[in-house]
Amino acid sequence: MAGIARLRDFVQGMTRLADAGAGEAAFLSEGAALLEDLVARDDWLPPAFAAAGPGYRQYLLHCDPAERFSVVSFVWGPGQRTPIHDHLVWGLVGQLRGEELSTEYVLGPPGTPPRPGRRDRLRPGEVAKVSAATYDVHVVENAVPDAPSISIHCYGANIGALRRHVFDPETGEARGFISGYTNDVIPNLWDRSGG
Amino acid sequence: MAGIARLRDFVQGMTRLADAGAGEAAFLSEGAALLEDLVARDDWLPPAFAAAGPGYRQYLLHCDPAERFSVVSFVWGPGQRTPIHDHLVWGLVGQLRGEELSTEYVLGPPGTPPRPGRRDRLRPGEVAKVSAATYDVHVVENAVPDAPSISIHCYGANIGALRRHVFDPETGEARGFISGYTNDVIPNLWDRSGG
Ligand SMILES: [Fe+3]
Ligand SMILES: [Fe+3]
Ligand SMILES: [Mg+2]
Repeated sequence: MAGIARLRDFVQGMTRLADAGAGEAAFLSEGAALLEDLVARDDWLPPAFAAAGPGYRQYLLHCDPAERFSVVSFVWGPGQRTPIHDHLVWGLVGQLRGEELSTEYVLGPPGTPPRPGRRDRLRPGEVAKVSAATYDVHVVENAVPDAPSISIHCYGANIGALRRHVFDPETGEARGFISGYTNDVIPNLWDRSGG
Repeated sequence: MAGIARLRDFVQGMTRLADAGAGEAAFLSEGAALLEDLVARDDWLPPAFAAAGPGYRQYLLHCDPAERFSVVSFVWGPGQRTPIHDHLVWGLVGQLRGEELSTEYVLGPPGTPPRPGRRDRLRPGEVAKVSAATYDVHVVENAVPDAPSISIHCYGANIGALRRHVFDPETGEARGFISGYTNDVIPNLWDRSGG
């Protein structure tokens, strides 16, 4: 199996987990294994969903029709990083290309800057798990100075539609935001006529 | 509600029917009502999925991840028509723009031409139901001589991946085919950040 069939396989596996009533624990164990399979090979992401832009890109690849999970290609150009933000749901991050650095932030008393905590560097083929209960606020940045880095994220909601928060780096003040997506079209996973 | 939200609503309604275990009868009654809502207004189909080409176009708009149903935009330019073909599954056809003509064909003894049967003309907002048990072999053509016609089809399978048949107009001989889809990308229904 190669090409877009690899992504279709992942989507169908995650859908079966959701249909079987998986909760966060099952998604973070069995879903992580599926994502490891997906990012084990870098031969399937269409170029339109791998293109860097003037800011980091969040390309939706698939959203479960009942919005139980979504799959997103994040593309960081050199020097690009997210603001300090939360997710409010479980997440899986699989590194496809390049490397990314995730820095956890711990919120302090109102008016004080969030403090950096754990730092994790993700290399191609590696999968990280996050849970709203244990690790929810972070900054992600490209760890490669001279090329784009791409990771495939899977979250326990339609992440681009979820109202969540960014945090002021000086005061920690939370501001609600809905990220949306960069793209108006997503890959067609369903043409099997090529074999 | 306007724009792509209308299509998202249809997809979520059909998904709920499928999750509730709908069989052909339920899809053809309750699904038809959902499709009537969808084609009642022509304000939501993105232009990329409404463009005519040198042959008729079959643009996938959505495929259920478990491949229980699919939604396709068919675009006929002036003079364009399908070969004589079957579907093997239930189908709903909602006319969005222009008019189309469906001519049923009845297969005769081997070596004889299929005979034309019922002819149905579909006007904007109208929905037709087809069942593999009662009406499966037909030709569809643009009924408007000078403009494209567009209908939204929903079938009880991933129709572009299903092995089905076209029939020789002289001999009735069946040949297996898999239609595939015209498009490599499908609409992103899931960005709710615009409100
Ligand atoms: Fe994040
Ligand atoms: Fe047909
Ligand atoms: Mg194709």
